[in-house]
Amino acid sequence: MIKTIQTAFLKLRSNKIFELVVVAVIIISALEIGAKTYDLSDAAIFILEYLDVFITIFFLCEILVRFIGEEEKKNFFKSGWNIFDTLVVVISLIPVDESEMALLARLIRIFRVLRMISIIPELRILINSLLKALPRLGYVVLLMFIIFYIYAAVGSYWFSDINQVLWGDIAISMLTLFRVMTFEDWTDIQYETMEVYRFSWIFYMTFIFFTAFAFLNMVIGIVVGVMDEEHTKERNEGQPSMLDLQKQIELLSQQVEQLTKGKPDKMP
Amino acid sequence: MIKTIQTAFLKLRSNKIFELVVVAVIIISALEIGAKTYDLSDAAIFILEYLDVFITIFFLCEILVRFIGEEEKKNFFKSGWNIFDTLVVVISLIPVDESEMALLARLIRIFRVLRMISIIPELRILINSLLKALPRLGYVVLLMFIIFYIYAAVGSYWFSDINQVLWGDIAISMLTLFRVMTFEDWTDIQYETMEVYRFSWIFYMTFIFFTAFAFLNMVIGIVVGVMDEEHTKERNEGQPSMLDLQKQIELLSQQVEQLTKGKPDKMP
Amino acid sequence: MIKTIQTAFLKLRSNKIFELVVVAVIIISALEIGAKTYDLSDAAIFILEYLDVFITIFFLCEILVRFIGEEEKKNFFKSGWNIFDTLVVVISLIPVDESEMALLARLIRIFRVLRMISIIPELRILINSLLKALPRLGYVVLLMFIIFYIYAAVGSYWFSDINQVLWGDIAISMLTLFRVMTFEDWTDIQYETMEVYRFSWIFYMTFIFFTAFAFLNMVIGIVVGVMDEEHTKERNEGQPSMLDLQKQIELLSQQVEQLTKGKPDKMP
Amino acid sequence: MIKTIQTAFLKLRSNKIFELVVVAVIIISALEIGAKTYDLSDAAIFILEYLDVFITIFFLCEILVRFIGEEEKKNFFKSGWNIFDTLVVVISLIPVDESEMALLARLIRIFRVLRMISIIPELRILINSLLKALPRLGYVVLLMFIIFYIYAAVGSYWFSDINQVLWGDIAISMLTLFRVMTFEDWTDIQYETMEVYRFSWIFYMTFIFFTAFAFLNMVIGIVVGVMDEEHTKERNEGQPSMLDLQKQIELLSQQVEQLTKGKPDKMP
Repeated sequence: MIKTIQTAFLKLRSNKIFELVVVAVIIISALEIGAKTYDLSDAAIFILEYLDVFITIFFLCEILVRFIGEEEKKNFFKSGWNIFDTLVVVISLIPVDESEMALLARLIRIFRVLRMISIIPELRILINSLLKALPRLGYVVLLMFIIFYIYAAVGSYWFSDINQVLWGDIAISMLTLFRVMTFEDWTDIQYETMEVYRFSWIFYMTFIFFTAFAFLNMVIGIVVGVMDEEHTKERNEGQPSMLDLQKQIELLSQQVEQLTKGKPDKMP
Repeated sequence: MIKTIQTAFLKLRSNKIFELVVVAVIIISALEIGAKTYDLSDAAIFILEYLDVFITIFFLCEILVRFIGEEEKKNFFKSGWNIFDTLVVVISLIPVDESEMALLARLIRIFRVLRMISIIPELRILINSLLKALPRLGYVVLLMFIIFYIYAAVGSYWFSDINQVLWGDIAISMLTLFRVMTFEDWTDIQYETMEVYRFSWIFYMTFIFFTAFAFLNMVIGIVVGVMDEEHTKERNEGQPSMLDLQKQIELLSQQVEQLTKGKPDKMP
Repeated sequence: MIKTIQTAFLKLRSNKIFELVVVAVIIISALEIGAKTYDLSDAAIFILEYLDVFITIFFLCEILVRFIGEEEKKNFFKSGWNIFDTLVVVISLIPVDESEMALLARLIRIFRVLRMISIIPELRILINSLLKALPRLGYVVLLMFIIFYIYAAVGSYWFSDINQVLWGDIAISMLTLFRVMTFEDWTDIQYETMEVYRFSWIFYMTFIFFTAFAFLNMVIGIVVGVMDEEHTKERNEGQPSMLDLQKQIELLSQQVEQLTKGKPDKMP
Repeated sequence: MIKTIQTAFLKLRSNKIFELVVVAVIIISALEIGAKTYDLSDAAIFILEYLDVFITIFFLCEILVRFIGEEEKKNFFKSGWNIFDTLVVVISLIPVDESEMALLARLIRIFRVLRMISIIPELRILINSLLKALPRLGYVVLLMFIIFYIYAAVGSYWFSDINQVLWGDIAISMLTLFRVMTFEDWTDIQYETMEVYRFSWIFYMTFIFFTAFAFLNMVIGIVVGVMDEEHTKERNEGQPSMLDLQKQIELLSQQVEQLTKGKPDKMP
């Protein structure tokens, strides 16, 4: 009988209407989260509370359907998305004292919106491609961190007496440098230090130059990476490379040569 | 006789001088709109009023010429540009009480400038290519909206007590986050919340990182899309693919092989 | 004898040392312009005045050498760079009353620095490539102007009563919109109008979206254009197209077929 | 015996564990630099001082190992990275009066973090590729400098009476223009000068346009350059060009032709 339920759930899982209902409930849960940020009447709060219980139960059932519908139980937890979904649902089940951990409980509810990504395949592909691009950028990020760290150390040594709030220690300095990188009121910071160290504009200029250059490199890295992928995809679709063509022509050439040489032998 | 008029109008429509006159009237209507934003003498206002009547009538005539000149009346409304033109002209015909709906009436007159796009083919192609690029970006925009929504909910839950104007509800929070994305005085917002929550810089940093990354992805998506189109166009211009070449060489190879094999049979 | 001078000047013109001297004088003239922006002692001003006279005479001689050295006098004025050089030199010869047109006279002297571009071939190529890219962008710029014009008209109609300085007339509004496009304190403008029109954020959001999109389109237009050029250059360097290869293989195939068919005839 | 030591050191140098230890010590030295920016207890300062001595000695030993391990002593100083490493280590050995040159001594210690780049090959490659891209950009940077210089001269001539702090001399003006280029409160500067010169917005607009255009050109230059490299790399990996294929097909065609012609001769 378990087999029958499993098959029924497997069918349900791949049902288009079932998926639409799940998406609808996720959207409702998102709207509920948004509604809670407004000042609401008591009646509305009461309704939202019941809605929340309903959503929690619905998500629990949905995960169960997915889990039972899976033929190979082990495979279920091999997908990162399934683990994410289960975690979000299970944690939102834990009863929390509203006064104490309300903030955290609310946060978990917000993560339900992320389930949208695990449900819609196109978004899943998009996120996966973003994650795949990350390691490629690893070393550029490391390089950028080194640049930030060195400039933050220099800034902290030199400017901490000028403005404790901006250059107090290395952590604060890195935050200030991030602000400089986004060009956010960076000249105010510059003019302040230039009053003491006249040539401190060199500090800011070189920093902006290095980070902009590293960032540019990162962007180009991604673009070239994406193009390589397109290239590889094309090749996998059965398109031969120039080298393949060359080899084929060479083979043909040998055949023809064979033909030329072979003829006199065949002639009596 | 109707046929004669239609042919005459069809001729008129494709007349180069006619088109230039229409463009000139559109430019005049644009200048009229601009002129109205200045403080004008009564005489000037009087002239502009008459100019407006003239432009309205001219546009009406022009649309009629286009409509009557069309052989297949149905096709006329198949083009989105024709519908747009007709709507703008018809709505600007409705008499409005100057005191009441003056603002709306003015707005409609402004849309006349957009007729420039429907008249100049190059601009029409540009807009069409923009519209074609939109669906490709649909899912990236959806992903970006989810990121905005989640961060706005979190921001509204945590920071609404700190600053009602910036984080009051989820809608205001989204507007504030858009401001952060454009780097517009975002550190002021950050410093304010950091006084209460010391680690709230993580909120802003991750948000900037995610949106910048999603935006980058969007840009690269468009670039790759445009290149694919160029690629496809090239193919459509009769350029064979690598695979086509390979197949041809294979065929040739078989021919030569046939030749080699066939010979002994032919030899007595 | 004129012929001899011409040949001598032609030789001088293409002399490497002569070119270096000209570049050196241009740099000196640039330094002189920069020096004049500082508060100087009377002695220094006296020296700079004589230096200016020397530079003016040197440039005049140089242009004369170039002109006389030119075999075909007509060709000299066919190059835009020569016309530019001559104009800058000739205008700086006109004596100006220091008190009256001093500002203009100074401006002309500044343009001498631009002669650097006309002297160094690599910079000339760079500028030419920029100028060549401009017409391709013509329609995008026109589209952007239309967007600016419409939004400026709308902004001027709606917001002129809120802030005369920012939205007074259509010209001021366009300047304000350019400021919004560069994200420069744009939220201040937005918050001001949102107090009267609650939904005016739609105005700013759509404007930012449209201009960003048009700008993006422009950038991609340039990139694709540059790539097309590279493509064309490659082809001009003697690289055959796929189609060329295909045609050759087809021809070869016909040859082989001829061979196959021809054989029985030859066999007795 | 020296030979034995050399071989032992050569082995040590390429040892994976040795490299990890070096990276670890570099990270410790980075953390030490960061720690010093905080207010520390006397005990902590005491420990950091000893840590500093240890790091200095460790780096000295490491450089010696590398140097002695090198078979050809001359080659050691042919690598820029080795020279950089040696300089950083040697300079940090010089004893400095803490009160006097403390700032410089600290700076040298910060440069030790840069040794991370010389140790990790991936970062070294990244930096090398950045350095290789620089000369290609040389002329664009020169062009940009000319634009800055001319606008700074004009700005200094016209606006120095309006605001000495922003337009005092040509150096300050260039700094102000860099600020305008990063869109940092540039409208404040513009509004100030527009009060005196109504049309000074043309100055800012054209400047933004020219620098943005030059910057764009620079980015595209890098992208196209990177792609060319990929192209060249592909070719070096043994992929033939279209031209190679064409030549081969032509050769084959001649072979077949030879076969066709040759046959009658062979036939008796």
